[in-house]
Amino acid sequence: MKLTEKMTSSRLLYGGKILKLYLDDVELPDGSGAKREYIRHCGGAAVLFIKDNKVALVRQYRYAYGKEMYEIPAGKMDEGEEPLNAAWRELEEETGYRAESGVKLNDIYPSPGYTDEIIHIYFVDRAKFVGEKLDDGEFLNCEFLPLEDVLALIESGEICDAKTVCAVYKYLALKDKFTR
Amino acid sequence: MKLTEKMTSSRLLYGGKILKLYLDDVELPDGSGAKREYIRHCGGAAVLFIKDNKVALVRQYRYAYGKEMYEIPAGKMDEGEEPLNAAWRELEEETGYRAESGVKLNDIYPSPGYTDEIIHIYFVDRAKFVGEKLDDGEFLNCEFLPLEDVLALIESGEICDAKTVCAVYKYLALKDKFTR
Repeated sequence: MKLTEKMTSSRLLYGGKILKLYLDDVELPDGSGAKREYIRHCGGAAVLFIKDNKVALVRQYRYAYGKEMYEIPAGKMDEGEEPLNAAWRELEEETGYRAESGVKLNDIYPSPGYTDEIIHIYFVDRAKFVGEKLDDGEFLNCEFLPLEDVLALIESGEICDAKTVCAVYKYLALKDKFTR
Repeated sequence: MKLTEKMTSSRLLYGGKILKLYLDDVELPDGSGAKREYIRHCGGAAVLFIKDNKVALVRQYRYAYGKEMYEIPAGKMDEGEEPLNAAWRELEEETGYRAESGVKLNDIYPSPGYTDEIIHIYFVDRAKFVGEKLDDGEFLNCEFLPLEDVLALIESGEICDAKTVCAVYKYLALKDKFTR
């Protein structure tokens, strides 16, 4: 069955700092019409940084959930920025470590029903400490937790951030390929 | 360091069918002010259904990305609906299988920077075929793919939906507990 939906009109409802909200009219595969409300997002980059078998995690307050969460270092890409550059920049800003080499782990699509965001995830195991430099208005704590503890926190549900769960499991699935 | 952000004012910018967009003023940990734009979402439920070592996947057109994607059966929760009920309802609507037993796999937070969505993921291995009953305006194809093929599609990046990646890896990590 052909599944494509065709845009017949598009309206920007809100153009914000990190997201744009659209409401489009579309033609469905059977010719009938429907509305699609969705977010356009500049995309994110994240880094699974493992040093001496310890994973760099940032703990920050996530306003939408009203609580602190553990996540791998990450942030949104600047306009026109390359994902790898954004990933390394965020790693350095949030942990103080400058990556010296890294490989792509995966891209994830966090919630395909209403956002076009792509999160580009990299793995880094070599980096040197150059000092944190958080953005103005950014508050977070960086911690290094043993990989086994991180896995236990994922399995217990304490770590529930999608990019972090995807990154850790994909690393474990592929880590033999990364051994140098 | 204390990380909590305190709301000082909240404004609903858009109240839509699947999401509400807010723009709030907050007080940061150092007493300075900032804006937070974010989505309130009713939450989603998803099912990893494995039958004879084959995974039920739905292939559907995702308008925000402009392409078809493979995902595990899922959908948004109705107002006040229990996650398990939503998961089983979506499984039946999209695959035609009615779950007979299941366990919670995990909750994932798809993109904590701008949405409060929680996706509740269940694992089901016993279900009986009762016939699909897609919602009006819903177009998708259900396929059963061998677990090994699904894993290969995740590793190649062809499957990139966060809930699907999280569900499959968590199942593999915990599957010995599910053996009955």
